[in-house]
Amino acid sequence: MLHVTQSMVSRFKIFCDPVHGFISVPKNILMELIGTPEMQRLRRIRQLGIGHLVFPGAEHTRFGHALGAMALMQDALSNLADKGTPVSSEESIAAQAAAMLHDIGHGPFSHVLEHTFIEGYRHENMSRELMVSLNERFDGALDLALKIFDGTYERPFFHQLVSSQLDMDRLDFLRRDSFYTGVVEGDVGVERIIKTMRAHPQGGGPDSRIVIEAKGIYAIENYIISRRLMYWQVYLHKTVVAGDRLLRTAFGRIRGHLARDSKNLDGCCSPSLLFFLTNHLTLDDIRREDVRKHFCRIDDVDVMYCMKACMRHPDRILADLCRRFIERDFFRVTFLSDLPSKEQVEEWTDRIAAWLVSKGLSDAACARENAHCYLIRDDTRHLAYEHVRDSVHVLDRSGTVRELSQTAEATTVSSLGEVVVKPFVCYPKEVGLEMGG
Amino acid sequence: MLHVTQSMVSRFKIFCDPVHGFISVPKNILMELIGTPEMQRLRRIRQLGIGHLVFPGAEHTRFGHALGAMALMQDALSNLADKGTPVSSEESIAAQAAAMLHDIGHGPFSHVLEHTFIEGYRHENMSRELMVSLNERFDGALDLALKIFDGTYERPFFHQLVSSQLDMDRLDFLRRDSFYTGVVEGDVGVERIIKTMRAHPQGGGPDSRIVIEAKGIYAIENYIISRRLMYWQVYLHKTVVAGDRLLRTAFGRIRGHLARDSKNLDGCCSPSLLFFLTNHLTLDDIRREDVRKHFCRIDDVDVMYCMKACMRHPDRILADLCRRFIERDFFRVTFLSDLPSKEQVEEWTDRIAAWLVSKGLSDAACARENAHCYLIRDDTRHLAYEHVRDSVHVLDRSGTVRELSQTAEATTVSSLGEVVVKPFVCYPKEVGLEMGG
Amino acid sequence: MLHVTQSMVSRFKIFCDPVHGFISVPKNILMELIGTPEMQRLRRIRQLGIGHLVFPGAEHTRFGHALGAMALMQDALSNLADKGTPVSSEESIAAQAAAMLHDIGHGPFSHVLEHTFIEGYRHENMSRELMVSLNERFDGALDLALKIFDGTYERPFFHQLVSSQLDMDRLDFLRRDSFYTGVVEGDVGVERIIKTMRAHPQGGGPDSRIVIEAKGIYAIENYIISRRLMYWQVYLHKTVVAGDRLLRTAFGRIRGHLARDSKNLDGCCSPSLLFFLTNHLTLDDIRREDVRKHFCRIDDVDVMYCMKACMRHPDRILADLCRRFIERDFFRVTFLSDLPSKEQVEEWTDRIAAWLVSKGLSDAACARENAHCYLIRDDTRHLAYEHVRDSVHVLDRSGTVRELSQTAEATTVSSLGEVVVKPFVCYPKEVGLEMGG
Amino acid sequence: MLHVTQSMVSRFKIFCDPVHGFISVPKNILMELIGTPEMQRLRRIRQLGIGHLVFPGAEHTRFGHALGAMALMQDALSNLADKGTPVSSEESIAAQAAAMLHDIGHGPFSHVLEHTFIEGYRHENMSRELMVSLNERFDGALDLALKIFDGTYERPFFHQLVSSQLDMDRLDFLRRDSFYTGVVEGDVGVERIIKTMRAHPQGGGPDSRIVIEAKGIYAIENYIISRRLMYWQVYLHKTVVAGDRLLRTAFGRIRGHLARDSKNLDGCCSPSLLFFLTNHLTLDDIRREDVRKHFCRIDDVDVMYCMKACMRHPDRILADLCRRFIERDFFRVTFLSDLPSKEQVEEWTDRIAAWLVSKGLSDAACARENAHCYLIRDDTRHLAYEHVRDSVHVLDRSGTVRELSQTAEATTVSSLGEVVVKPFVCYPKEVGLEMGG
Repeated sequence: MLHVTQSMVSRFKIFCDPVHGFISVPKNILMELIGTPEMQRLRRIRQLGIGHLVFPGAEHTRFGHALGAMALMQDALSNLADKGTPVSSEESIAAQAAAMLHDIGHGPFSHVLEHTFIEGYRHENMSRELMVSLNERFDGALDLALKIFDGTYERPFFHQLVSSQLDMDRLDFLRRDSFYTGVVEGDVGVERIIKTMRAHPQGGGPDSRIVIEAKGIYAIENYIISRRLMYWQVYLHKTVVAGDRLLRTAFGRIRGHLARDSKNLDGCCSPSLLFFLTNHLTLDDIRREDVRKHFCRIDDVDVMYCMKACMRHPDRILADLCRRFIERDFFRVTFLSDLPSKEQVEEWTDRIAAWLVSKGLSDAACARENAHCYLIRDDTRHLAYEHVRDSVHVLDRSGTVRELSQTAEATTVSSLGEVVVKPFVCYPKEVGLEMGG
Repeated sequence: MLHVTQSMVSRFKIFCDPVHGFISVPKNILMELIGTPEMQRLRRIRQLGIGHLVFPGAEHTRFGHALGAMALMQDALSNLADKGTPVSSEESIAAQAAAMLHDIGHGPFSHVLEHTFIEGYRHENMSRELMVSLNERFDGALDLALKIFDGTYERPFFHQLVSSQLDMDRLDFLRRDSFYTGVVEGDVGVERIIKTMRAHPQGGGPDSRIVIEAKGIYAIENYIISRRLMYWQVYLHKTVVAGDRLLRTAFGRIRGHLARDSKNLDGCCSPSLLFFLTNHLTLDDIRREDVRKHFCRIDDVDVMYCMKACMRHPDRILADLCRRFIERDFFRVTFLSDLPSKEQVEEWTDRIAAWLVSKGLSDAACARENAHCYLIRDDTRHLAYEHVRDSVHVLDRSGTVRELSQTAEATTVSSLGEVVVKPFVCYPKEVGLEMGG
Repeated sequence: MLHVTQSMVSRFKIFCDPVHGFISVPKNILMELIGTPEMQRLRRIRQLGIGHLVFPGAEHTRFGHALGAMALMQDALSNLADKGTPVSSEESIAAQAAAMLHDIGHGPFSHVLEHTFIEGYRHENMSRELMVSLNERFDGALDLALKIFDGTYERPFFHQLVSSQLDMDRLDFLRRDSFYTGVVEGDVGVERIIKTMRAHPQGGGPDSRIVIEAKGIYAIENYIISRRLMYWQVYLHKTVVAGDRLLRTAFGRIRGHLARDSKNLDGCCSPSLLFFLTNHLTLDDIRREDVRKHFCRIDDVDVMYCMKACMRHPDRILADLCRRFIERDFFRVTFLSDLPSKEQVEEWTDRIAAWLVSKGLSDAACARENAHCYLIRDDTRHLAYEHVRDSVHVLDRSGTVRELSQTAEATTVSSLGEVVVKPFVCYPKEVGLEMGG
Repeated sequence: MLHVTQSMVSRFKIFCDPVHGFISVPKNILMELIGTPEMQRLRRIRQLGIGHLVFPGAEHTRFGHALGAMALMQDALSNLADKGTPVSSEESIAAQAAAMLHDIGHGPFSHVLEHTFIEGYRHENMSRELMVSLNERFDGALDLALKIFDGTYERPFFHQLVSSQLDMDRLDFLRRDSFYTGVVEGDVGVERIIKTMRAHPQGGGPDSRIVIEAKGIYAIENYIISRRLMYWQVYLHKTVVAGDRLLRTAFGRIRGHLARDSKNLDGCCSPSLLFFLTNHLTLDDIRREDVRKHFCRIDDVDVMYCMKACMRHPDRILADLCRRFIERDFFRVTFLSDLPSKEQVEEWTDRIAAWLVSKGLSDAACARENAHCYLIRDDTRHLAYEHVRDSVHVLDRSGTVRELSQTAEATTVSSLGEVVVKPFVCYPKEVGLEMGG
């Protein structure tokens, strides 16, 4: 007789996470949510899109991040409670659920292809739609989680922990991405930040917001600088950008083929992927059930399969783009101080066209048109600190609350309130474009 | 003019690895090898098969491990040279190449499916075949690496560093898997083990072998115990075993369909995957060029795609098995103290058959036959320390060399020389089998 | 007006510990205990005696360890409560206090000099005496902590967490010493061990004891092996042993001088140190208030000051011993397979005596007598697993409890139940003794 | 026969460091230097002065830091050599020696008491004097090390690695102090900074300087911000400041007693400590051999012993100050936005004087005079980035070198070029001074 006494059964399931250690998930709606196909799908979506092709250790997925954000929510709420802001069990579960489901609307390769599939896509909106579906499936168990997610709950500090400049999402992904990339400078003192949070006023009522105690101010400054470093060193690393634009270009080419002949990709695309590549969808369409159904069926696997299959596609340009992606033979990226002149672009296009012909990748007639797949101009941009719409507030010892960039200590932060834009151009290494002056 | 002076060009490419920190790869044949499709393919093969479905942080692939084994080889050779064993630049490159390519013959999901695709498969043999191909492509640049790999080089200690109980492969994978799973007890003092290695006699001639200095003996003991822990706690974790057997069972079912009708899986299998599922291949066949070509084209993507696609296969049993795999709805595993009696198995089979019918997964006629997909009996086995064929040798301060289990300090090791076998049975959680008696 | 609103005051004081991260100490009796001179004195007692002279990073003191043991007690009790064993707030505070005060009776350099100062010393007994004094000072606030410490409390599992083979003391010091020495192999999966503990039966009544769940068995085995490694690699490292015996020998010499003339050490010894060096005290004497008062006044500072001052003592032997200690010019240690014969010892003594004369450290008449300070014979001994008096118990899935060495998995443990003894001899490097033969 | 064959002897001594892992010290002049009393003395000087009284894990000493700086020098030189700047073996040893000996002139408690003992003290000057002495003892073996230290060697980049804003000293102490305090935000990507260093022009000639490659710019920015955080969060933590000023005040009191009666401290001060407390010495005096001799004899032990002994001094004020230091009963520190008015200070002094009388610590006549020991006004100040005298230079991809604050990426750095000053006042917690208003 296999005999498990009731007393042996734990009320928690323990996950072993290299970033946060042991994560305890209570065996209630939270554990049920983890078991859903929607959450399991996150195991097949890489956190950093193609970042692992530059940082070989960073092969982690959205699934671990979702668990991590939930774990940090536990810590944050426990800290607030210690400081006199009451949190009910129901609120705690709802806030954890909201933190966990926050990114459930991400598509294959996270941000890379989102606009390829749905114009004007914002993953937060899809996350919300999927939460609504889950809520129906679980008979309203996510009512409160949705309110917190939407920011309509009467205690708004919960929403801030789910979505703001210091939310659990950001704290987890920075710590996690730093851990897996090995970029130690990006490591953030998550524990200290959480320990110096309070709801102010402490009751946690309708006018209460998350503030940072004065002693946490340097940790916050460090967090903003570390995040900025992660953006330029990892998320917007130029080889990451190169791979990202290569993948988008390949799918642009595929969309072109499909527009001409919907059978063109037979055997290369899963039915759900085909759905997105043959329909023109916009953000509003995520309210359609068929759109959501197909969306939940695609992940990195569909994209990778498509790329691998198209390596043998008769269109030599497409085949070459896919081979470059799979074999990691990316374009070179050069950041530009000034936008290139029209003449400059023309001249580059000519040279690439000539190279395509010489390599047999294109006949002369289409060469200049095809060259657009091999000369990609765009820019990366990043705002280190958002002090207007979503600022960080600091509570000093005298009880005064000030916006971070207004404090004497955070002198550096005020210089980070502007968007930094870096234009760039991608082109084949084999073509020696001469840049600049 | 984009202007990069020669002086700016480094002789190394730096990889940022969370496990070993910065890894310097010299820009010679080693960097060229990393760029090959064969090596890049390892980015699509998870190191732990399906281990990441139990340890959510462990999503790392064979690619990082290959780099890591190479990096440890650098350290090991540098340590030996410090201790008076000369190593030439050519030998160093060859040994690093051999360490890096050691696992290049792994198939999708590492060990899980190898026998499904090729009977009697041993990945080392395929690694060797692929090294031979690469050697041709690189005009003999891997001649020495192959000799070292084969153990035919005149300085046999190089082979030991590539393939033995203390080789760079094992040192890296234990450290790496411990890091990514978060199972800290499995962490191994790789640095100390490498620092206490010597070639003895130190010249490194034909009779010279790798030995461990006496002061390293506890580190070795700890390594063996940690490795054992990793086997039982991670590699042979019962949920890992459950997922592993589920995947094999699904492919067994697929093979059955294909045997009856080779078109049955249309749109679900890539051509190369189909090649392995429709041919009966044995280890000898890896010498065939077509086998190798198809082998290099399959990775985790093909398998995952197939599982996802078959979730909608008309065979409800197959569809259910695939859904279970994708949604991580694995069977329960119970370890058995004794093998079940024939009657016991019959009774279990009946119950599962009845359950299949009740669930509409099978009609009554085929129910007992189908039950075999839902009642899997097998065993796991592990040998902690191999003292007969591949022993560790210790050099004490008096210059005497002894086999590890013969030393006074390593008292625990002698108790680890026997294979531990644990029989188990997998079955659906929904069916309450009563075990034991 | 400096204005601190009540709401700003936290109920916890946070310590930042590199080993366990943030440690929260509630602002009750626990925080008051930390502020006592007895606890602050632990800041001046190195955890590893003279271990830092071999492992330069390991300069940590008993103070951090006391905090750490308290922090682990918090975790352990919280885990037990999660598993259905109720723990009251009063019990929790008492158990934390007991864990924190457990080592408060340690003298200068931890174990090194304890028998030099008090014959038959056992620091646990002194810890208890000091707890009793503190209890008086705090009006009985430690009544329950003392019961738990003594093992007389009606729920005996608390005592086990304070004092047993898996107590918080050991878990903290192994983790901590591994961290500070950099001996990563000694790192122990403290989190996992604590997570797999339960009180069984779970109510935590008089017959309930701490057991380890079956899934924790490999972690326990690893813990025992790691602990064994720490003993031989760190605590009983031969250079540590050399420094330890040098310090004891110097104090033996000092005791000799003081026996002849109590003024002999004027200006070298603090009054309280002198108290211990001029009185012959035994364990029973720790009940005397004057003994305890003087004991609480001595720490590493007194010992170090004495050694430094005696470097200029007119006794050249004493001055040389002290110089050797301060300048870390230790004796050589050789482990012996057999005890040396009487003739061997005589011969060594002659050689050392001759060397002392040649160096001008002794006149010929006293040379053989003085040689005893330069030829120290002793042994180190360690028992890896105590299965008789203080065993670890494992709870398997069927609800059966077994002693660890009786489980099938812990095959290695049964080989660790015997005391390992290693005899050694210390002597000046400058004298080339020939050993063995 | 104890038999150690020549081949067994390693050319390196390995230190196990928790921060950098294994540190290899070649068995040449470097190992001999480590064995000198001057270096061993650093084992008795805490790195953070009294920082360990606030960060309980940070009990590390100058000794580990000296080893660490040497280890980083090995890494830095090896990196420069990899990038084409030749470094001879002699230069390497000299540079390592200079890095190791850089801080050898630190006195007890590092910076805390330096001006108490010698007016206008600068530890670098004493380090140099001691290096000169060592050079004589080792027959000129440190000639080159001294040149590098002085900046007179013909290849000035060596001096920069020993003394500049990015020298090995700073890189090690930030990493080390972050490690031991547990303030993870202060952790600095030392490996990355060293990997992105080059000598430019690369030959390493007289006009060649250390520059940072453009890709390292964010790591440098992060380093500057982390360093700033460490200053405010650790080095200038207000409780650290409180303990620091308490210790200085106690020694001021002692100096007063000694000025009146040189026998007043009998039995409390070591002879060498007394030498510094009874003589008025200035920086020029460090050229005197007797000053250096006494300096090398004092360390934290002498200071701690003095504090402990003076707890029982008849001067109740002194006894109270020492008790406060030993029992960690520090003053409260309040940072002030404005300097207090003369009236404010007068009023505070009155209140403290009254309190001293009420506590029996002072008679009424001397109460206002004594109050100066209990009301300490001073300020802390820190300059985050020194861009004028000692700037960091960045080499971009076009070969242009620019000062860090002039680069587009390091926007935050330009805001850090001014000294931040924070005035504060220390006073007994028991006296409720009203501040501000």
